Amino acid sequence: MNFCSHCGNPVELRVPPGDHLPRFVCPHCGTIHYENPKIIAGCVPDHEGRVLLCRRAIEPRLGYWTFPAGFMELGESVQQAAARESLEEAQAHVRVGSLLAIVLVREAKQVHMFFRAILPKAEFDVAPESLEVALFAEDDIPWTEIAFPSIEFALRMYFSDRAAGREDHHFTTAERRPRM
Amino acid sequence: MNFCSHCGNPVELRVPPGDHLPRFVCPHCGTIHYENPKIIAGCVPDHEGRVLLCRRAIEPRLGYWTFPAGFMELGESVQQAAARESLEEAQAHVRVGSLLAIVLVREAKQVHMFFRAILPKAEFDVAPESLEVALFAEDDIPWTEIAFPSIEFALRMYFSDRAAGREDHHFTTAERRPRM
Repeated sequence: MNFCSHCGNPVELRVPPGDHLPRFVCPHCGTIHYENPKIIAGCVPDHEGRVLLCRRAIEPRLGYWTFPAGFMELGESVQQAAARESLEEAQAHVRVGSLLAIVLVREAKQVHMFFRAILPKAEFDVAPESLEVALFAEDDIPWTEIAFPSIEFALRMYFSDRAAGREDHHFTTAERRPRM
Repeated sequence: MNFCSHCGNPVELRVPPGDHLPRFVCPHCGTIHYENPKIIAGCVPDHEGRVLLCRRAIEPRLGYWTFPAGFMELGESVQQAAARESLEEAQAHVRVGSLLAIVLVREAKQVHMFFRAILPKAEFDVAPESLEVALFAEDDIPWTEIAFPSIEFALRMYFSDRAAGREDHHFTTAERRPRM
C-alpha cells in the first residue's frame, strides 16, 4: 500500500494512538487502513466414496491437485462459498456438509475453512481454472502432487475420520510450499 | 474506495475479465482491489461456571454487554486472537478451548468465530475498551442488554450445550441490531 484509497495521498506506516501494531495511516485525511486475514473456503466433494480433485490451470502451483477452494466473497456464507467454488472450478453441484478443517496459513495471510460435501451425481467437468477434474479413491490420491499443505492436511483428516466413522473438525497451522 | 492504493490514481468499479463480481479496478496500473469478509475472533471465558462479560466503552453498542471479541490480526491464529482480545478488553488470561459458533454477519462484512475458554483465576479488570467487566451466572446474564445478535447466539449455544454435556459448534447467519 502506497496511497490512501480514500483521498489518494501517500500513506505512512506507523502505530496509531491506542493501537499496538503498525498500520498504513493517511496523514492527510486520517484514515487508518487495516489489513486482516482473508478466508479461503473449500470442500471435499465425495461421490460414492471417491473424492473430486481438480488439477490447477493457474498459478500458484499450476499442474498440482486440489479440491475446489477459493476466496470467500462478501454476501455469502462460508458454505455457500465452498459450493460456488465447486461449481466454478469443477462444474460440480455439491451439498456442503460438516466442518472438516480450519488451517492458518500465516505467510499467505489466509485462514482456510474446509468442509465435507456430497456430490450426488458423477457430473463434473473442467472449468477455466482447471486442467483436469477427476474422482479419486483414497488409494489413488496423488499425494506427492497435492497443491498446498492445507489441502493435504484436510484430505488426510477426511480419510482418517471416515475410517473411524467420525466427522470431527481439525485446526492446524500450515506453511505454504516453497515455489517450484 | 476512491483511489488506487498502489499508484494513487482514481479507481473504477467494474467486473474484471473472467470475474463475476464488480471490483474496484485501477485503469492506470491495472490493480484489482478485492474486498473480502473479515474475521472477528472471540471467546466465552468460564470461571467455575460463571462467564466473563464486558460492558462496551466504545461504539457501536456502547454500554451493552459482550464477551471479549475483535478483529483477527495478521500473524495470529483465530484462537490466539480470541485470547488477545480477552487480555485487551478484560485483562483476563484465558485458555481457549473448543469451537463454539461461526456466525455470518453479512451487512458488517464479517465472519464471527467464537470459542469456549477457561478463565483459571477470577482475575480481570476494566481496560480502555470496557466500562465494566464481571462474571455472570447463567441466570444473571443481561439478555436484553447484549451488544450483538452473534454474541447472544453464542452465549445461548454455550449454555444449552453445557446443560446437555456437549461441546458442539454451531453455524448461523445474524443481522446486526439497528443503531439505537
